[in-house]
Amino acid sequence: MVVDGRRRMFTPHMRNIRLTVAYDGSDYVGWQVQPNGPSVQSMLEEAIRKLTGEHTNVLAAGRTDSGVHAMGQVASFRTELPIPCDSVPVALQRYLPPDIVIRDAEEVPFDFHATFSAKSKRYRYVIHNGRKHNPFLRRYAWHFHGPLDSQAMHDAGQTLVGTHDFRSFESQWPNKATSVRTVTELTVRRQTFCPLWFEDGDLKPSDEDAGDFIWLEIVANGFLYNMVRAIVGTLMSVGRGRWDSVEVRRILEAMNRSQAGDTAPGHGLYLVEVDYGM
Amino acid sequence: MVVDGRRRMFTPHMRNIRLTVAYDGSDYVGWQVQPNGPSVQSMLEEAIRKLTGEHTNVLAAGRTDSGVHAMGQVASFRTELPIPCDSVPVALQRYLPPDIVIRDAEEVPFDFHATFSAKSKRYRYVIHNGRKHNPFLRRYAWHFHGPLDSQAMHDAGQTLVGTHDFRSFESQWPNKATSVRTVTELTVRRQTFCPLWFEDGDLKPSDEDAGDFIWLEIVANGFLYNMVRAIVGTLMSVGRGRWDSVEVRRILEAMNRSQAGDTAPGHGLYLVEVDYGM
Repeated sequence: MVVDGRRRMFTPHMRNIRLTVAYDGSDYVGWQVQPNGPSVQSMLEEAIRKLTGEHTNVLAAGRTDSGVHAMGQVASFRTELPIPCDSVPVALQRYLPPDIVIRDAEEVPFDFHATFSAKSKRYRYVIHNGRKHNPFLRRYAWHFHGPLDSQAMHDAGQTLVGTHDFRSFESQWPNKATSVRTVTELTVRRQTFCPLWFEDGDLKPSDEDAGDFIWLEIVANGFLYNMVRAIVGTLMSVGRGRWDSVEVRRILEAMNRSQAGDTAPGHGLYLVEVDYGM
Repeated sequence: MVVDGRRRMFTPHMRNIRLTVAYDGSDYVGWQVQPNGPSVQSMLEEAIRKLTGEHTNVLAAGRTDSGVHAMGQVASFRTELPIPCDSVPVALQRYLPPDIVIRDAEEVPFDFHATFSAKSKRYRYVIHNGRKHNPFLRRYAWHFHGPLDSQAMHDAGQTLVGTHDFRSFESQWPNKATSVRTVTELTVRRQTFCPLWFEDGDLKPSDEDAGDFIWLEIVANGFLYNMVRAIVGTLMSVGRGRWDSVEVRRILEAMNRSQAGDTAPGHGLYLVEVDYGM
């Protein structure tokens, strides 16, 4: 227990719980509560209400959009429920649909905030670059049947690594106080499979750069609205031979969203993990 | 053209077309037209009607049930449309939803019958034997979190290889004229992945017997109603240590469906390929 004595006096037994959550975003309007359909947040808040009887606000590391998936979303909420953390995943799962899975739960200090405490997040975008559409992957990868040069995409992507004003890759600018973000990793590699599982024996991407799937992996200290999808749309134009690294640098420096490529569809995007430096 | 002259006089330009079809069976009542929802057959017949203007009957190699998938279902239909076979997949796809994909089309002799000309069919059943439910695979594998001995399942499965009366594994007996079928292959192996893709670089199962997924592969000259799913349900009881090879032999010899295990759910089942000996 990391709760300090003073806070304890005002909220006896109150605890801060961190959840690691995987979900298939296909049937949701996104993470955040919206008027036009079910959200992952509302499903979680409803499950917590059923389990604890408490109306609580669930915070998340990344506000994923409609159709976007998560393997390791992190969410936190406060509760007075005295249930052991180890039992929380199974207990909550009873009130959740099978497309939202609680992978883990642990108690964290009161000052832990799923959104603001995050040091970095890893997103993955999966392109299915096969000749034919795959009926099983229509919700889980963006299908593109034409030739794509994954090495050129990777090379041009290196232009974006580092600390930059990513305004050219932000929908609805100005959306946040600053558009400056630090991208610490951006890799584009072909893989032989679409990653739809995550536990024991979690398959890691290989360095071979072969196969019908292209994975774009990106790690940054924060992401602007639609930033990954705008980067994917831009690097797709590189993969198709329309643009090169020089053009991507020009787009970055233009600080104008209209210069970059289209926003790639949400269903190829996965929030893979969140790093809190803990 | 293999159409003989005589037939040609009566049905000028009539051709017999064989399609190879993949589909995600999640949202269908099964292959066959049913009153209670959309079927794969009705979607194909509707697409052919839109393309050719002809009302046609589409025959299939295997009448897959509700929720059952196909990677290589084979279907055939007759048409007077003079379109080259190479163009049929793209032309038909325009009228099909993304969960049904025409992989191939070719012209075949008039006496080719998708159902009766089949020499053998290969089905695959996928069990996800991971600790936790995977939200992305809820439609594509049967989740079972307890321990399963895949080697014992494989060994007991060998009892079923050969020519036998499979009445103990047939729902709704007597369903066909005879319950005798010949199983030429039955393997159970752990794999590291769930097979949701099929083209170029098609991932083949490995012989390692390791990973969170268990694939049961079965090849036979024909299958009774729910036969694969009853075999899976029975071998699951072997995997859990309740039954052994001796018990499976006793069940086979009992020729009584009530002796065998439960029918495994449809969503783990895939019709992988059909062999016409051509």
